[in-house]
Amino acid sequence: MSKLGLWLIGARGGVATTVIAGLAALSRKLVPCTGLITDHPQFSSCEMPQAEQWVLGGHEIRSGSLIDSARAIEADSGSLSLPLIEMIQSDLEQVDRRIRPGVLVNADEAIRGLNGQQCNGDSPTPQEALERVTGDLNEFVQNNELDGLVVVNLSSTEASLKDHPAHQSAIALQEALFEGDSTAFRSSTIYAMAAANVGAAYVNFTPSAAALIPATREILEEAGCAYCGSDGKTGETLVKSALAPMFAQRALQVMSWQSYNMLGDRDGEVLAHEENKSSKLASKGELIHEILGEDVHSQVRIDYVPSLGDNKTAWDLIHFKGFMGHRMSMQFTWQGCDAILAAPLVIDLARLLAHAQRRGESGLQEHCGIFFKSPIDSSTHALSAQFDELMEKAQIWSSTSTSE
Amino acid sequence: MSKLGLWLIGARGGVATTVIAGLAALSRKLVPCTGLITDHPQFSSCEMPQAEQWVLGGHEIRSGSLIDSARAIEADSGSLSLPLIEMIQSDLEQVDRRIRPGVLVNADEAIRGLNGQQCNGDSPTPQEALERVTGDLNEFVQNNELDGLVVVNLSSTEASLKDHPAHQSAIALQEALFEGDSTAFRSSTIYAMAAANVGAAYVNFTPSAAALIPATREILEEAGCAYCGSDGKTGETLVKSALAPMFAQRALQVMSWQSYNMLGDRDGEVLAHEENKSSKLASKGELIHEILGEDVHSQVRIDYVPSLGDNKTAWDLIHFKGFMGHRMSMQFTWQGCDAILAAPLVIDLARLLAHAQRRGESGLQEHCGIFFKSPIDSSTHALSAQFDELMEKAQIWSSTSTSE
Amino acid sequence: MSKLGLWLIGARGGVATTVIAGLAALSRKLVPCTGLITDHPQFSSCEMPQAEQWVLGGHEIRSGSLIDSARAIEADSGSLSLPLIEMIQSDLEQVDRRIRPGVLVNADEAIRGLNGQQCNGDSPTPQEALERVTGDLNEFVQNNELDGLVVVNLSSTEASLKDHPAHQSAIALQEALFEGDSTAFRSSTIYAMAAANVGAAYVNFTPSAAALIPATREILEEAGCAYCGSDGKTGETLVKSALAPMFAQRALQVMSWQSYNMLGDRDGEVLAHEENKSSKLASKGELIHEILGEDVHSQVRIDYVPSLGDNKTAWDLIHFKGFMGHRMSMQFTWQGCDAILAAPLVIDLARLLAHAQRRGESGLQEHCGIFFKSPIDSSTHALSAQFDELMEKAQIWSSTSTSE
Amino acid sequence: MSKLGLWLIGARGGVATTVIAGLAALSRKLVPCTGLITDHPQFSSCEMPQAEQWVLGGHEIRSGSLIDSARAIEADSGSLSLPLIEMIQSDLEQVDRRIRPGVLVNADEAIRGLNGQQCNGDSPTPQEALERVTGDLNEFVQNNELDGLVVVNLSSTEASLKDHPAHQSAIALQEALFEGDSTAFRSSTIYAMAAANVGAAYVNFTPSAAALIPATREILEEAGCAYCGSDGKTGETLVKSALAPMFAQRALQVMSWQSYNMLGDRDGEVLAHEENKSSKLASKGELIHEILGEDVHSQVRIDYVPSLGDNKTAWDLIHFKGFMGHRMSMQFTWQGCDAILAAPLVIDLARLLAHAQRRGESGLQEHCGIFFKSPIDSSTHALSAQFDELMEKAQIWSSTSTSE
Repeated sequence: MSKLGLWLIGARGGVATTVIAGLAALSRKLVPCTGLITDHPQFSSCEMPQAEQWVLGGHEIRSGSLIDSARAIEADSGSLSLPLIEMIQSDLEQVDRRIRPGVLVNADEAIRGLNGQQCNGDSPTPQEALERVTGDLNEFVQNNELDGLVVVNLSSTEASLKDHPAHQSAIALQEALFEGDSTAFRSSTIYAMAAANVGAAYVNFTPSAAALIPATREILEEAGCAYCGSDGKTGETLVKSALAPMFAQRALQVMSWQSYNMLGDRDGEVLAHEENKSSKLASKGELIHEILGEDVHSQVRIDYVPSLGDNKTAWDLIHFKGFMGHRMSMQFTWQGCDAILAAPLVIDLARLLAHAQRRGESGLQEHCGIFFKSPIDSSTHALSAQFDELMEKAQIWSSTSTSE
Repeated sequence: MSKLGLWLIGARGGVATTVIAGLAALSRKLVPCTGLITDHPQFSSCEMPQAEQWVLGGHEIRSGSLIDSARAIEADSGSLSLPLIEMIQSDLEQVDRRIRPGVLVNADEAIRGLNGQQCNGDSPTPQEALERVTGDLNEFVQNNELDGLVVVNLSSTEASLKDHPAHQSAIALQEALFEGDSTAFRSSTIYAMAAANVGAAYVNFTPSAAALIPATREILEEAGCAYCGSDGKTGETLVKSALAPMFAQRALQVMSWQSYNMLGDRDGEVLAHEENKSSKLASKGELIHEILGEDVHSQVRIDYVPSLGDNKTAWDLIHFKGFMGHRMSMQFTWQGCDAILAAPLVIDLARLLAHAQRRGESGLQEHCGIFFKSPIDSSTHALSAQFDELMEKAQIWSSTSTSE
Repeated sequence: MSKLGLWLIGARGGVATTVIAGLAALSRKLVPCTGLITDHPQFSSCEMPQAEQWVLGGHEIRSGSLIDSARAIEADSGSLSLPLIEMIQSDLEQVDRRIRPGVLVNADEAIRGLNGQQCNGDSPTPQEALERVTGDLNEFVQNNELDGLVVVNLSSTEASLKDHPAHQSAIALQEALFEGDSTAFRSSTIYAMAAANVGAAYVNFTPSAAALIPATREILEEAGCAYCGSDGKTGETLVKSALAPMFAQRALQVMSWQSYNMLGDRDGEVLAHEENKSSKLASKGELIHEILGEDVHSQVRIDYVPSLGDNKTAWDLIHFKGFMGHRMSMQFTWQGCDAILAAPLVIDLARLLAHAQRRGESGLQEHCGIFFKSPIDSSTHALSAQFDELMEKAQIWSSTSTSE
Repeated sequence: MSKLGLWLIGARGGVATTVIAGLAALSRKLVPCTGLITDHPQFSSCEMPQAEQWVLGGHEIRSGSLIDSARAIEADSGSLSLPLIEMIQSDLEQVDRRIRPGVLVNADEAIRGLNGQQCNGDSPTPQEALERVTGDLNEFVQNNELDGLVVVNLSSTEASLKDHPAHQSAIALQEALFEGDSTAFRSSTIYAMAAANVGAAYVNFTPSAAALIPATREILEEAGCAYCGSDGKTGETLVKSALAPMFAQRALQVMSWQSYNMLGDRDGEVLAHEENKSSKLASKGELIHEILGEDVHSQVRIDYVPSLGDNKTAWDLIHFKGFMGHRMSMQFTWQGCDAILAAPLVIDLARLLAHAQRRGESGLQEHCGIFFKSPIDSSTHALSAQFDELMEKAQIWSSTSTSE
């Protein structure tokens, strides 16, 4: 059985820790596959990678250990239990040894302000950062004799980056790199370029827009890498993507859709900064207008409520008109644990992209729209349509399976 | 332009009054087509019937007038306004003159207890009832020189009828009719048979199970009639059919789905009777198990809350497990005006079935699953899949349009 | 029976129109006293003013008529019905003739931007404005031979006014008036001074802080006027004042209290301006900390959602710790029509202050805390305690009733 | 420092286990006093019993251990943590050794059907049961040299008992006991009589009506015992008692108040039996009519939803009329852990009744209304009024403190 690498940017964050603990628990048959889309029977003949095939590593800018992260999760949302953490302790320690210090390139204030950074004094040029990250990835592949590699960006949402001419093409970006013009980069840009350097698939699971700009997409495509993004569709936006089509299908006229999101984890702390929040809001907001039209009064708010921790709570109000112009309303409350909702999607994406790479399918993975709030070049945000697209892909893969 | 008949059983009830007022308002261009699925652009080249083509009539067991009903609606939910009622007063009066006394065959206590009945003392045999109803329909067609007819059952939910051998075939039911065995019938059975007698399409918009038993379905099919049912999917069940697939698609394991429905209109009054409620509960309950599996703990309650009137309020709690077995929850409140949600579906169904009849398409209209809580012989309850089925039909019709 | 004047600033706004329509309907015995606190039996022997004793008038900066306002309310929230408007049409017309153009003194952008103003070009000095308003009030008293007068500020929330030394004493403010220093005033300041000029009681039902500054309070007290404020406690804050004490009494530790308010009326339009909203937020926010302590993470948001009109919707999340530090939560949705909730409070306050004036009780009406979000010099925000204070006053009044 | 006994009927149930764990944690200063009403500063000079003064014991009909119960709670609601359980393990074991087999007298089907019973075959006569329970209590007092004893009934809700003439007086009940007429008794009756036999204070924390009938109250009073009940006001009813007064105070006319309760613990399992549920419903239902009048349409439902465990979820809809008859609504969702909410109340009651006994105050403890859904002979259900009553008692106690 071949070995595959999964490299997580933000490797000791809540989502990454849950991914790492989850793959360990799946390998040891301690938990079922709840939450994994690629566990649908449609994928059963696709020979998707198994939990025990994965070797994990990653970058992290903060110090600490995965055990600490796992215990912090237990105390916060209770989504990892103490007995489980004990059972997988050796796995966590092993992965911990493969985590390398992350890089900070043109980082914004919120990111720089995160507690417990191990790379504070460190200000590499973009070129130096790229070399270091590429080196780390190469070392990971060689040390572990990997047959494939998927890099997933799970780091905190960056403030949006001012448009820069170098974003428009591979060649212009490489020139900016050469010239040391750090204003063309965020850390996420560097990670995407490093993935291309080593031929790894790349997933932008965050809303950070600097990760998949036209230039990095071109670089990934030229390097034959599969990629997709952006911003994992985990909770309230997921519900919207299931509900909004109902109003469209039934020809009910939505007048207003108000979305209030509350969260208290590190993600929330970073999003309390207006510049970082704006990246997220843009990502969350586009769905309603795409599905229901431009006339809908739609507002999305995100508030930092520390006591909630990772148990995100969202409340939405939908005010709509029916026949004869009569006004009615619907509201919902979503109470979901973010890392628990995100982690299986990350594992799904790792499986899907590793599989695509193995089949020689590179470039934008268009069938992965269901995983993202802002699917790149998306044809639709509607959940069922996205699900159908993915199942169609499974169907194609099943009927043209390759032998290893 | 041809004239089409729409005959409503329960013609002065809230839904029927809203259908009648709505078609009048649409004909006079007083309101837009909000809520009409057949107004989707996919139907634009299908030559669907227009609002002004319809001639309306119906059966009603209660006395009163449509103007009274319309004013009662205004005072209750405000979904019809006084200025609108004034503008369409002559239309309402005209339809009122075409409403005939309904029949009560083997009616249960709740139905018999409805206020203001004009046919209380009246107990026709099934045969007499069928003859009278058939006569009314024939007269309606002839007096108005109709080119087509759709009969829609909008009457109060009947108590479920004990299984009877005569339900299994057309021939057995006709024998029971001949023998005067009223235990094989409810009023709704008679109306379906009458529709077949005059070659009309038939829609069972209620959960009353006695309407479309195997025997009446056979009778309708033999008579070349299009038909479908049962129980209009108007509110809380609609939301469930949009949301439940989300949990299935994302492989989230729903443990419990609790549904609490409150309503205060005549429908609610009838449903306060346990036997009548059980028909409705069966109809509302099947969706969750079909989409999410048999293991879900699913309860549906319907309570009569008089002050709510036709503004139905429903609250659902969904308790589910995600990755690593972590428990999360979602809840929604739906506040919808029942008649306003139901009326456009009735108009949609009238259009679809009249169109099918005109094209010579008879029998069960399988593409109409989206309209019902319990679509007969349904392949799915999932809303998006049902929508796709209907749009596929529109596509077929568009590509093979007939000339009149 | 004596005649009493009720003078409303913002006389054609939603609340004022509902007050005027409500008193007309009460006088004609068309509606019961629902919502009137002073209708509690504890007041029965206090000889409170009756509905038919009131003569109404007011100031308004917008043009239009009360009939127009009433019809707009009917179309928006349906809280006034067309038949009722017809029955009280002559009353509305009569009051309309007593409405005078309002004044704009140092008005902020949001107020100046309101549609349909009749006094746009008009920029009186504070002194001129005061003279005009005083003249209007005097004329109202004389023309109608009034035995008492209560002035209630119902105008749109003003942006908060920068601190000014003249706010600290009557003498300093009168000096600023004399010097024409308009930065010491908002329109609401002028109305309070005019009330004092004519010996009227004064109620600040808005959050506008410039109405009851130390200086105007001193002026009202010197003039022997009863007064109270600020900001009517109509909806979501009312619920908070009933619920927050529960957590305190049961020693449950509230960690976070998030409040999301949505509204779509003119009030909402003005509050969409940040400076005006800040006045409101300050007023809504203080309750939680007063009752539950400073450590609670408490956020109040107000969003303008046009489609909701006057049907304000609010959602609150309360996240709290119980025994053993266990975290739990509560949430509520409030759907209330603002004018309907505010109008009876205005009538209550008019009755209470007119009664106090008649008894020679002047100055701050401390027993009126129950009516306000920010009761001046309040001992408590807790609803039940405020109710007890008011009932104690009723008890005192009952036991020392004066004869007219 | 004197030693006090707290004897819990249902000693290994969720609430009792949390009480026992809680007192252990409080004694060891592991947790703060969150949730304890008697920790309010008003009690600070009352010399209330301290956590470390209590010696715990109880009756239990099921086998198992407190450690098992505590771990089951951890797995269910997470309200006890594994590290805490470890820290107090020796305390739990010590109490476990003082737990005696409970008695089943005239027990209903639901109670008899509970899993893991250790006294199944056992059918003592009422007299035998009383002797055994009295013996257990005496032994507890002597073995531990206790200076006071409070018995609290925390066992599962019994089906209501048919009226029996023996319920009306002490003498009649003792006669029935002598005659062995078990139809006059439930187990809870026996426990109350045993408390009287040993001079212990008695609290009925359950809705079981057979505990405090006129006869047992007379017996307790004659024995000089303090007592109170019934049915701890822990969650949704608590919220109602805080909210309902708001509508009354503001003269808003509540038309309907619908309450839906879901729970999944053993309590829920027992309440799934209609006869047991009816006891609870009666207890939960009376509040609304007492506070808001008889005209309110009020329904309370309790549903067993196993997946929720002890995390009770309740949703209430309040539909009300305001000024001018305008209809509005409010809804709330309560998500509370039952044992966590109940346990501090049990500790409060133990402290209050032990203190009363020490002061020689016997009979019904009228100031304890705040603790119960159905306070015996209550003057009010309104929370704030009940709080004021309790604080007044604290005030009296403070000003007349006794020295030990």
